[in-house]
Amino acid sequence: MSAKPLLPASGAWRPGEPAGGRQFLRLDRRFALDGGQVLDGIEIAYETWGTLAADGSNAILLCHAWTGDSHASGGAGNGHPTPGWWENAVGPGLAIDTDRWFVVCSNVLGGCQGTTGPASLHPDDGRPYGSRFPVITIRDMVRLQVRLADHLGVSVWHSVIGGSMGGMQVLEWATTYPERVRSIIPIATCAQASAQQIAWGSIGRRAIMTDPNWRGGDYYDAAPGHGPHAGLATARMIAQVTFRSDNVFTERFGRALVGGVDAQSGISVDQQFEVERYLEYHGDKLVQRFDANSYLLIGKAMDLHDISRGRGGLEAAMARIKAPTLSIGIRSDILYPAYQQIQIRDMLRANGTRAEYREIDSPHGHDSFLIDLDQVGPPITHFLGDV
Amino acid sequence: MSAKPLLPASGAWRPGEPAGGRQFLRLDRRFALDGGQVLDGIEIAYETWGTLAADGSNAILLCHAWTGDSHASGGAGNGHPTPGWWENAVGPGLAIDTDRWFVVCSNVLGGCQGTTGPASLHPDDGRPYGSRFPVITIRDMVRLQVRLADHLGVSVWHSVIGGSMGGMQVLEWATTYPERVRSIIPIATCAQASAQQIAWGSIGRRAIMTDPNWRGGDYYDAAPGHGPHAGLATARMIAQVTFRSDNVFTERFGRALVGGVDAQSGISVDQQFEVERYLEYHGDKLVQRFDANSYLLIGKAMDLHDISRGRGGLEAAMARIKAPTLSIGIRSDILYPAYQQIQIRDMLRANGTRAEYREIDSPHGHDSFLIDLDQVGPPITHFLGDV
Repeated sequence: MSAKPLLPASGAWRPGEPAGGRQFLRLDRRFALDGGQVLDGIEIAYETWGTLAADGSNAILLCHAWTGDSHASGGAGNGHPTPGWWENAVGPGLAIDTDRWFVVCSNVLGGCQGTTGPASLHPDDGRPYGSRFPVITIRDMVRLQVRLADHLGVSVWHSVIGGSMGGMQVLEWATTYPERVRSIIPIATCAQASAQQIAWGSIGRRAIMTDPNWRGGDYYDAAPGHGPHAGLATARMIAQVTFRSDNVFTERFGRALVGGVDAQSGISVDQQFEVERYLEYHGDKLVQRFDANSYLLIGKAMDLHDISRGRGGLEAAMARIKAPTLSIGIRSDILYPAYQQIQIRDMLRANGTRAEYREIDSPHGHDSFLIDLDQVGPPITHFLGDV
Repeated sequence: MSAKPLLPASGAWRPGEPAGGRQFLRLDRRFALDGGQVLDGIEIAYETWGTLAADGSNAILLCHAWTGDSHASGGAGNGHPTPGWWENAVGPGLAIDTDRWFVVCSNVLGGCQGTTGPASLHPDDGRPYGSRFPVITIRDMVRLQVRLADHLGVSVWHSVIGGSMGGMQVLEWATTYPERVRSIIPIATCAQASAQQIAWGSIGRRAIMTDPNWRGGDYYDAAPGHGPHAGLATARMIAQVTFRSDNVFTERFGRALVGGVDAQSGISVDQQFEVERYLEYHGDKLVQRFDANSYLLIGKAMDLHDISRGRGGLEAAMARIKAPTLSIGIRSDILYPAYQQIQIRDMLRANGTRAEYREIDSPHGHDSFLIDLDQVGPPITHFLGDV
């Protein structure tokens, strides 16, 4: 441990670091939020692949999940610590073929990879927002993406696509701006966060907020190694279990012990199972690339996700969606169970909206939409060419 | 909050406090543990109901779960902060009829309700064990219960019954001491902890151990309010979600907000959903009655649970079980899925051992064995009269 360099207080990307594929749009107007607050001088980080057709008809928006960012594709390095989150789904000749489509992905509002978030500098005093950053909603994220679409000259997206929290944005796009989406592909997502989803999110936030190094959200000037790393890692570990499945954990780890010691000599408080090491790895990895306050605020936005809010109930909200829809579910998903994606299909069909449902048969649970591209890609390709 | 009295560093029961139904047995010999350590001067807290028959044939052992204790029945008060964990299943005329059966339940080794555990005083210096308490296993718990059986004059239990961690003890009884059990009823349990179960347990322990008030396990002399309460509550909240189900959370809480404010005005970081208040309630409640180190060590014992350890594999271990078995599973259990209890039935039958399986159809998840007594009780009553 002592040989490792100490981590900075936050894993947020900072201006001045290599930007990689990021481009930036700075809003010249104030931005009003669902919660009533207003943000000034917002910057949006985004990436694009392919070329926008002269008639603007070939644009696709990808919406990232909780700890994702604009880097959907393009390899690792140069400001991008990892390859794109859909590296093998987005590119020339791939499922979302950038020879045909102009693909856009932006870091969400409240994020930490270039778009304004709690680690960004407050325009009033040039110090990080920290605890001053306001509550945000999925609708706020989408409203900001509208500004980006306007800037890029995209009046109608051929499709808006995303999984998990990305799928929440997809549904808000189709509900709030039905005239600006030709089709949507919500994946492993829901129309409203369920009580169990809220429970998991809430416990993760608690783990961060009870870490004394969180300091009420104002930890950005802490010395290296003194950020809320322990709490953020615990939160990630909770999420990581819900992102996978019982089956895949049993198949991959079973009861194997770290170090391969035999089971008898493994009776010790310090003894560690391989599954524990795996969770620690994922906790540590997130700490290196993410910001605890972004994790908190984006998580809260997911709990607040409810496309029916202010719209007279869920049925009325779903009736606003007119775009042909491909709803994709995952059989082994314990966090966003398949019944939620089937509900999306059923409610749309009840309103006469074209809606299909495809189910990924994978043991990998919620994260299958990032893993099993052989199952996710073909129905997306087909649907994109058919709407 | 300020009106609440500050909690002591540990919620463990302490000698001198009202003992309630507890009786005590003090071992006069040293007790060797699976992990290689030895404990001196162990005390066992236990309770009994009914009368042991002259031929000793009517004795039933109840094994409690993670945060349970010897108080299976007998109401609240007088040293017992809550009614018994099977209050309405154990008593005269109830499913486990104490007019017929002599029922015994002891607090497990490492517990905090009278049996020696980390909050107990080390015989060498009269100070709490704290970090000095050794790792324990389910087998250690059972070996200690053997001493109690000897003391009570029970050579063969008519049945050993328990759910969750209690069921782990049940299986170890039947595997380690096949000659001392006439029948067993393992409920919502497993022959070996799965990787996912280990994952959840491990994250809960991490939440405690990263709480600075845990102090490496030596927190017993901390001032009131300065115990590892935050970490223990977080651990409990994680467990509480796994103890229930998606369905029951949706039915009970949905997206209801605390205070009943309307959804629009609820867009705030401080806004709280009812399910969050429920989890906090359960976290706080456990902190008041349990000891963080007991939670850690018993949780580790559950992760280490593997009836095959040192026995040449799972099939060989299961082949040692000769007692007729009623395996009970719960359809909605996400922590100990029903396939684990079906596996117990199937492996026993493959060896020619009489084994039945009953499944509880309840939305309440893992905790159904404590809740849905109308479904749990009748098959137990019938089985006890039939073996």
